[in-house]
Amino acid sequence: MSKLFVIGIGPGNPEGMTIACRAALEQSDVLVGYTVYIDLIRPLHPKKAVFATPMMGEVARCKNALMLAAQGKTVGVVCSGDAGVYGMASLIFELAQEYPPLDIEIVPGVTAALGGAALLGAPLSCDFAVVSLSDLLTPWAAIEKRLVCASMADFCMALYNPASKKRADYLEKACGIVLRHKAPDTICGFARNIGRAEECTETLSLAELKNAKVDMFTTVFIGNSQTKLIQGRMITPRGYRLD
Amino acid sequence: MSKLFVIGIGPGNPEGMTIACRAALEQSDVLVGYTVYIDLIRPLHPKKAVFATPMMGEVARCKNALMLAAQGKTVGVVCSGDAGVYGMASLIFELAQEYPPLDIEIVPGVTAALGGAALLGAPLSCDFAVVSLSDLLTPWAAIEKRLVCASMADFCMALYNPASKKRADYLEKACGIVLRHKAPDTICGFARNIGRAEECTETLSLAELKNAKVDMFTTVFIGNSQTKLIQGRMITPRGYRLD
Repeated sequence: MSKLFVIGIGPGNPEGMTIACRAALEQSDVLVGYTVYIDLIRPLHPKKAVFATPMMGEVARCKNALMLAAQGKTVGVVCSGDAGVYGMASLIFELAQEYPPLDIEIVPGVTAALGGAALLGAPLSCDFAVVSLSDLLTPWAAIEKRLVCASMADFCMALYNPASKKRADYLEKACGIVLRHKAPDTICGFARNIGRAEECTETLSLAELKNAKVDMFTTVFIGNSQTKLIQGRMITPRGYRLD
Repeated sequence: MSKLFVIGIGPGNPEGMTIACRAALEQSDVLVGYTVYIDLIRPLHPKKAVFATPMMGEVARCKNALMLAAQGKTVGVVCSGDAGVYGMASLIFELAQEYPPLDIEIVPGVTAALGGAALLGAPLSCDFAVVSLSDLLTPWAAIEKRLVCASMADFCMALYNPASKKRADYLEKACGIVLRHKAPDTICGFARNIGRAEECTETLSLAELKNAKVDMFTTVFIGNSQTKLIQGRMITPRGYRLD
């Protein structure tokens, strides 16, 4: 039976990959993915066959991966971060029903919520919610409800896809919603280009975050009511008595 | 300046570690952690100095790590899964204020929500919430509110620490709360001993989960309203049109 890996490569730098990720990349005859992610791993596998497609072509890309596997190739579908979290794993399983039986293995990876948190300090040490602000596949009303409910329950939050060219004001909208339930001085932060050359972080208040300029390579963190700044780091205490 | 790593080792098997994790373990003069996690990595570093303490000694353990670093040692504080998510990163930052300046680096890892999801299929492909059912550091009322709000907003959920000897009925209580807002046939699953010899998974309905027997080495997954079983796997579709 042919093998198809869905591989989470982590933030993008080789150090952020797991050993299992490196092995699955190695074992694959052909690597399939979004052009930007394929470019991140191509230096590790300069001679490997690749099938890179631009954004928005996810269904066609996954169908192609399944077709290559049906032809007997060992295929690696490459995702940034984790293979499941806003990755291709679910789509592969959905589409695989139309293809001959296949051995599908999901290789988990360090998603941006974890990679960004490590750079900022420890913002997600307590219960947290992960929300994508992209309304391409999820209606905005559902996103808004999740922001409201996560805020009401004092979850820490990681926001993916906080902006794009077409959605320049989505983070501002999201912060406006969160500000109805969380204090304006709630500690927030963001991490940009995690694991890449231009990697940077910033900490700021929720009120300031509302007007921050972010892009699609940014992951945003909103603290809970206990989150604080310690020597410039964004820290959510777990609640231990320190004495 | 001394260096202190807080290292997420992933599920526990060497393949689940990142390259950065392996490098940080290698670079550390002494490894500090909960006995069970230290035992997982000791075979990789049989000659390395270790300081292993049982559960509940987290503050003393972190103080010890900081003291060793203050003495000039390169210290690796070992956490299972991620370094931040219910890990030691926040506690280290809180306590470090009382010690000489230190170069603290957080090495993120594959937390159980991602590792378990990969085994089950793709349960966390949409917005999700991570909640620990342990009320050692968080009042049960806060946990209950988070379960209610996450359910109301149709988040997928990963539940950590679903049970212990003293909290044998906590998963049953949690499912009772979730059942007020999610359908009894909501697809759920759990993963046990992720990355270890006795690794296993099970899928079941939310109604069945309420009576499931789980232990402290289990991570529980509750789907959203769209989650389905595809060939035995727990899959949350992202919403792509498949044609």
